[in-house]
Amino acid sequence: MQDKYFPDVVGSDGRDFGKAVCIITGASKGFGRCIAKEIALLLKPGSMFFLVARSGDKLRELQAELAATRAGKAGLITRCVVADLGLKDDVDQVIREIREAASDIDINQLLLINNAASLGDVSRFAKSFTDLHEVNAYMSFNVSSALSLTASVLEVFPRRQDLHRCVVNVSSLCALQPFPSWVLYCTGKAARDMMFKVLAEEEPDLRVLSYAPGPLDTDMLLQARTESGDAGLKKSIAALHSQGEVLTCEESCSKLLKVLLEDKYPSGTHLDYHDV
Amino acid sequence: MQDKYFPDVVGSDGRDFGKAVCIITGASKGFGRCIAKEIALLLKPGSMFFLVARSGDKLRELQAELAATRAGKAGLITRCVVADLGLKDDVDQVIREIREAASDIDINQLLLINNAASLGDVSRFAKSFTDLHEVNAYMSFNVSSALSLTASVLEVFPRRQDLHRCVVNVSSLCALQPFPSWVLYCTGKAARDMMFKVLAEEEPDLRVLSYAPGPLDTDMLLQARTESGDAGLKKSIAALHSQGEVLTCEESCSKLLKVLLEDKYPSGTHLDYHDV
Repeated sequence: MQDKYFPDVVGSDGRDFGKAVCIITGASKGFGRCIAKEIALLLKPGSMFFLVARSGDKLRELQAELAATRAGKAGLITRCVVADLGLKDDVDQVIREIREAASDIDINQLLLINNAASLGDVSRFAKSFTDLHEVNAYMSFNVSSALSLTASVLEVFPRRQDLHRCVVNVSSLCALQPFPSWVLYCTGKAARDMMFKVLAEEEPDLRVLSYAPGPLDTDMLLQARTESGDAGLKKSIAALHSQGEVLTCEESCSKLLKVLLEDKYPSGTHLDYHDV
Repeated sequence: MQDKYFPDVVGSDGRDFGKAVCIITGASKGFGRCIAKEIALLLKPGSMFFLVARSGDKLRELQAELAATRAGKAGLITRCVVADLGLKDDVDQVIREIREAASDIDINQLLLINNAASLGDVSRFAKSFTDLHEVNAYMSFNVSSALSLTASVLEVFPRRQDLHRCVVNVSSLCALQPFPSWVLYCTGKAARDMMFKVLAEEEPDLRVLSYAPGPLDTDMLLQARTESGDAGLKKSIAALHSQGEVLTCEESCSKLLKVLLEDKYPSGTHLDYHDV
């Protein structure tokens, strides 16, 4: 696996994340799932993985896959936490499970990957979002939960001399540029980028990265290509495919892990796949 | 009043907003109240004002003040709508009142000023916002409602050849820059800027402006100065006061109205008081 995904980018030079607690949201598919598989190869034995998503079946599938890898056989502990992060009880449940299982294990790395996200209904335009509840449900899952979960995780793992703490916000070009018919997604991503910038300002010991992974070959891009209400945008996304500009999750994840392992980015920055 | 507030900036050259429906949120005090008083002087008789805020007493006080002005005597109709925009029923109620009272009156201008906002609890840092409900309540009032209300108002007043439609987002420097201990406020303002950028992309006939009014002498600045958790920021705000850099609402409003009347800004842009 290592040879396939990290030909010469990470891992091959012996760098790793040490003994870590690693929490990945939206881990059941797409980019989150890929991150889980790649990071697993870079953790020391005794590390603990928390994979969070709404779909329990897919999480358990991933858990089984991980158990069969070199990392799994070497003692990586993986916990699946089935949760809808848009709901307070579920966010609290995730934290309870992390606290119970991991708050007293001896680690030198904390990695939180805030990856969970939804595109929202991109078939409609901003002027159609008259229902406050619809907008709130989107914001809860995509914006508020990233703050609550991050704050709670930092509470479970407070600042400590020998603990390297890193929080990743999976961002998007949409955090910087408006795209017609994507009002919820753009708004949510812009909100998140700012939220993590403030966090980085406040916690100088913390490493905070907003990473825009580029256009990835995932269910989300398929949804974007088929459902976007804006005809021009729909065409642009189709063109990405035909011009071979869509990235595999592995390509993008490889760059993310390279950046995290090098650990030289300015905390709070927005970094795009194409900038690395 | 006109002489006092618009020495030579607006109004004096005869420009006005025509016969308008004008909706201002957060109109009971501070910048919103000031905008209401200034715009009243620039509306043609038969125009209709909707003043929205949580405090009915203060709104009615403003209504009485407006009735006593030249504009009030010339036939400006003012409606107070007591509403908490963080709640769906209240947003829906605002729209119902606007629809019933104004959807069939003959106007040539629609002006929606999304001004309502709260600073949030600035005494604490991002890492303390573990409660999803607290974050959601903030986002509902400060982000989601701006979209729902704007979308609903645009539905009541659809595109029409002879109707000039303008939506203002009262923004902040915080939409662009992170400030420690202001995670909710910065996140909300960044989210709103993007939301209105997308709206501007989608509706080319609409005029959309995000206006950052500068540091204003309001209750919000007092709260910021006394309650901010970050000591450095607290000091900076105090310094604004001692260096005379705090603006009156009238100074900032005057620039906003100048920009709106000139109507030359690129739709969707973020404009700061200091840029004008």
